Amino acid sequence: MAQRFADRFDRILEARDSLLCVGLDPDPELGPETSRGSPAALGRFVRGIVEATRPYAAAYKMQLACYLRHGSAGVRVLEDAVESVGPEPLKILDLKANDIANTMRHVHAAAFGRWDFDAVTITPWLGWETLAPFLETPERGFFVVAHSSNPGAPDFQEIPTPRGPLWHAVLAEVRRLAQEHGNAGAVVGAPYADAVATARAALGPRVPMLVPGVGAQGGALDAVVPAGLDDRGRGLLVNASRSILYADAGTGWKRAAAAEAERLRGEINRRRAAVRTARAARA
Amino acid sequence: MAQRFADRFDRILEARDSLLCVGLDPDPELGPETSRGSPAALGRFVRGIVEATRPYAAAYKMQLACYLRHGSAGVRVLEDAVESVGPEPLKILDLKANDIANTMRHVHAAAFGRWDFDAVTITPWLGWETLAPFLETPERGFFVVAHSSNPGAPDFQEIPTPRGPLWHAVLAEVRRLAQEHGNAGAVVGAPYADAVATARAALGPRVPMLVPGVGAQGGALDAVVPAGLDDRGRGLLVNASRSILYADAGTGWKRAAAAEAERLRGEINRRRAAVRTARAARA
Repeated sequence: MAQRFADRFDRILEARDSLLCVGLDPDPELGPETSRGSPAALGRFVRGIVEATRPYAAAYKMQLACYLRHGSAGVRVLEDAVESVGPEPLKILDLKANDIANTMRHVHAAAFGRWDFDAVTITPWLGWETLAPFLETPERGFFVVAHSSNPGAPDFQEIPTPRGPLWHAVLAEVRRLAQEHGNAGAVVGAPYADAVATARAALGPRVPMLVPGVGAQGGALDAVVPAGLDDRGRGLLVNASRSILYADAGTGWKRAAAAEAERLRGEINRRRAAVRTARAARA
Repeated sequence: MAQRFADRFDRILEARDSLLCVGLDPDPELGPETSRGSPAALGRFVRGIVEATRPYAAAYKMQLACYLRHGSAGVRVLEDAVESVGPEPLKILDLKANDIANTMRHVHAAAFGRWDFDAVTITPWLGWETLAPFLETPERGFFVVAHSSNPGAPDFQEIPTPRGPLWHAVLAEVRRLAQEHGNAGAVVGAPYADAVATARAALGPRVPMLVPGVGAQGGALDAVVPAGLDDRGRGLLVNASRSILYADAGTGWKRAAAAEAERLRGEINRRRAAVRTARAARA
């Protein structure tokens, strides 16, 4: 039987000694000159970022909309990029999928059948039953957006209910699904550092957490890394997109992306080592 | 200045004397033999459905995931289909988009820049501020999923809050955005017929409502049409996908799709005429 996603997630992060997820989310208004003007240029840029950051990345996350805006040729860039990554690092299709179960079957077929992603991102607005297609394939994962990284996150996610803010119910259900199927995780935005700690406490250990929003969106590693690690000092993936892709908007973009990915991985690992040391001292 | 989406929606539905939205949501397990096996076959099928149903449709809705599952070649089918529809009927990209505002800009660019859709579907989980890019283009619309058509809809949408079930707050905000920008609408699933009436009462007149879930999902026109029309007997779009696309799974698919679209348009219009007559008699 194939390995459950949570186990594969854990194994790959350990083997690569990295918690860094590189967000391949190209923005046509920000990229270096060479990345613009044609899908071919975009493809060279994305493949260049993959080559440059591969030694430091535990995962790549690809935001579907960044490719869709270039039409079918953009989606072709996406599928070439997925292929170029190969079986490792992990590949996450970021599309915040959410629809009736029958449609979620098509999302599943796209991400895991047509393409070889390891996981997708999901929002829960249409209800838990819509996740059914994803529960049938424990070797492929899904990250439910529990608390997002943006200013509007509280509008729905923090609606008070008799059992606490609404997003706490999301965490509880993700935990249950993770225990039962071994392939559920949660997205929790870095700018809400308290939320990351709350999420880890509610999810328990060994449930993957994907934390976007460090760097350009203002999340701080000092807060996020200790808060998001589980009791083994594992289970956490920290995403950075713009700060890596646009580390240098000139001809040095590839070298600068590699340097920034290496630096970020180091910054994260340094904080993880401190957490592990402190925990070992207490034990 | 370009016409606001709500006005265009109203004008096209009246001019075409139809409230029917044909869902171009091809399912590889259900289509006639001729629609399967290659993107080219899928493209011929979708174009054939458009040709067959054009006289009866006020709008087409295209579920992105049905095309994504065929990869970039599938997305090419989608963009060819959008082009083949032309400026009318309306074209709605159904992708339940929902992400941080910066990503929603890319969704906007895909739907309205790269492609010529008239509107998209949206879910609100990440908060209202994420809709900002859509408020800047009043001539293009967005339909927020207020109450979906599936069994799991109540999980989040009907969470009790001090001001009623959560989805009522969605209706109130859609109404406010519609009044201010003229391009907001709501998705309300047909199987919850009471929800359609609740939504119309809360939205008021002239706010477009898209109602999926008649036919295969069990919604009944008898309940939906009177409940969803505004006080002018307008403002409603009823979507049917599977019942039209798969009216005949054999060689007669194109003729059968035309017949079913014509029948559905007639069934809807008959009920609308009864509503208008009854209201005129009361006035």
